Amino acid sequence: MRIGVIGLGLIGGSFALAIRRAHPSAVVVGTDRDEAAIDAALQRGVVDAAATLPELGACDALMIAVPVRQMPELFARLSSHLQSNCVVTDAGSTKGAVIEAARTTFGAHVAQFVPGHPIAGRERSGVGAAAGELFEARHVVLTPLEENDPAAIDRVEQLWQSCGARVVRLEAGEHDRVFAAVSHLPHIIAFALVDELAARPNARQLFTFAASGFRDFTRIAGSSPDMWRDIALDNGAALAEECRRIEERLAALRRAIEARDGETLHTAMQRARAAREHWMAGELAGFRDDAA
Amino acid sequence: MRIGVIGLGLIGGSFALAIRRAHPSAVVVGTDRDEAAIDAALQRGVVDAAATLPELGACDALMIAVPVRQMPELFARLSSHLQSNCVVTDAGSTKGAVIEAARTTFGAHVAQFVPGHPIAGRERSGVGAAAGELFEARHVVLTPLEENDPAAIDRVEQLWQSCGARVVRLEAGEHDRVFAAVSHLPHIIAFALVDELAARPNARQLFTFAASGFRDFTRIAGSSPDMWRDIALDNGAALAEECRRIEERLAALRRAIEARDGETLHTAMQRARAAREHWMAGELAGFRDDAA
Repeated sequence: MRIGVIGLGLIGGSFALAIRRAHPSAVVVGTDRDEAAIDAALQRGVVDAAATLPELGACDALMIAVPVRQMPELFARLSSHLQSNCVVTDAGSTKGAVIEAARTTFGAHVAQFVPGHPIAGRERSGVGAAAGELFEARHVVLTPLEENDPAAIDRVEQLWQSCGARVVRLEAGEHDRVFAAVSHLPHIIAFALVDELAARPNARQLFTFAASGFRDFTRIAGSSPDMWRDIALDNGAALAEECRRIEERLAALRRAIEARDGETLHTAMQRARAAREHWMAGELAGFRDDAA
Repeated sequence: MRIGVIGLGLIGGSFALAIRRAHPSAVVVGTDRDEAAIDAALQRGVVDAAATLPELGACDALMIAVPVRQMPELFARLSSHLQSNCVVTDAGSTKGAVIEAARTTFGAHVAQFVPGHPIAGRERSGVGAAAGELFEARHVVLTPLEENDPAAIDRVEQLWQSCGARVVRLEAGEHDRVFAAVSHLPHIIAFALVDELAARPNARQLFTFAASGFRDFTRIAGSSPDMWRDIALDNGAALAEECRRIEERLAALRRAIEARDGETLHTAMQRARAAREHWMAGELAGFRDDAA
């Protein structure tokens, strides 16, 4: 089995390591637009060898783990090299725009492309932070296309399962709306808060007294601006809608503060704490569930 | 030396333990409106004995560590028992309303009351979570009053320093504006986000895919609704102003998303990440500083 990886960062590198661990006889090859990442991946033994796009398009399976806004151009360069036995998947955090690009570029080959999104990460990025166990017990969401060959979907699912991941399937639009709410919106808020405070005349004083609550709340504001600008643009419709909703919810709490309405504040806080406690305990049975 | 503590929760209990460690010959007595907290404090050796308000008002120093909205009533009950040699301080997260209550209630005794706010906490609350090292290397903000006897301020400062804390002084209004921004606002946002998502028809699906970024971002939504309703009401003016500002900043980022303005998004994200990195590294020299 020959596995290709395009994009030797944290996710691509970790996928390569996990595959090598699960399939010792597999040959894993890869590339990156950054030569230094290729060198580092070779040196760390993340991949067996560097490979060209024609070589990658001839693999049995190909993982594309580049920032989402780079995918359309990459798809265009890859398309003519894609052999019909090569199952392709990706690791993009948004799915709608990636799928649109794949449909436009791959033509009939789109049947081989099974979009995916591993829900895993760590504070550090780059191939130096890659770890073969990154996906263990983590969700990987696949958003299969109508055009997909069922065997291709199964193949991608099996590869992720061999990395220890729990694979679930969602419709692509649903995926993008869910992650706008639970991931993309919190990132936007964290960036917004830190930027707001850092711009103040008394910024130094504010950051002097910021403590552990602030540190955890803003941890995701340490994420890559390149990656998150791309996600915000790619998933713009769903994310803008989430921003509007939280603006409204915040304004409602502000009005309760202004009206000295302690009961409204307490009720919202109590509901939030209870929900979070259930979630942390893995107890999701009490949550509303008309998604299906 | 005889030290009293009213409110044997996380902060009061930790203060008692820290004082006992720093001053082995001191006698530490305390009370709580919850009998079970007194029993637990005695059993854990947090205090030497329970004490009545007359006994507490006759201590050399008295720490009041009850929720801020309970302070006015407590001050009223304590006032007639307060001996003139007893230096009083508190641990409230807001200062303006507490000071107003102290001025109203204590009369001339207000010279003995040095308001304070230790910047320390942990996820668990209650005397069971108390720890003598909680304040080590943490900031404690004192907001002395014009009426204060300088010796009383020094006394409170020395007590906190003996607990390992770094004492700084701020004007009370400044304290409340600073903490509205770096602490109270993030709490309101975290409560708002969890409450918003838990109320959705597809809440179960959303919480199924919420991951470590969401966990850290919302950690402070696990805080006590009683305490945070009180803080929001007590510091209402400054907090409402912070809510308005972040609503505006969020709306600006939303408009950038809607306009597909990647440069505005990237610039804000990059500024935020850089500011947070400097802060985490303890490098505050680059921040704007016209607070003084």
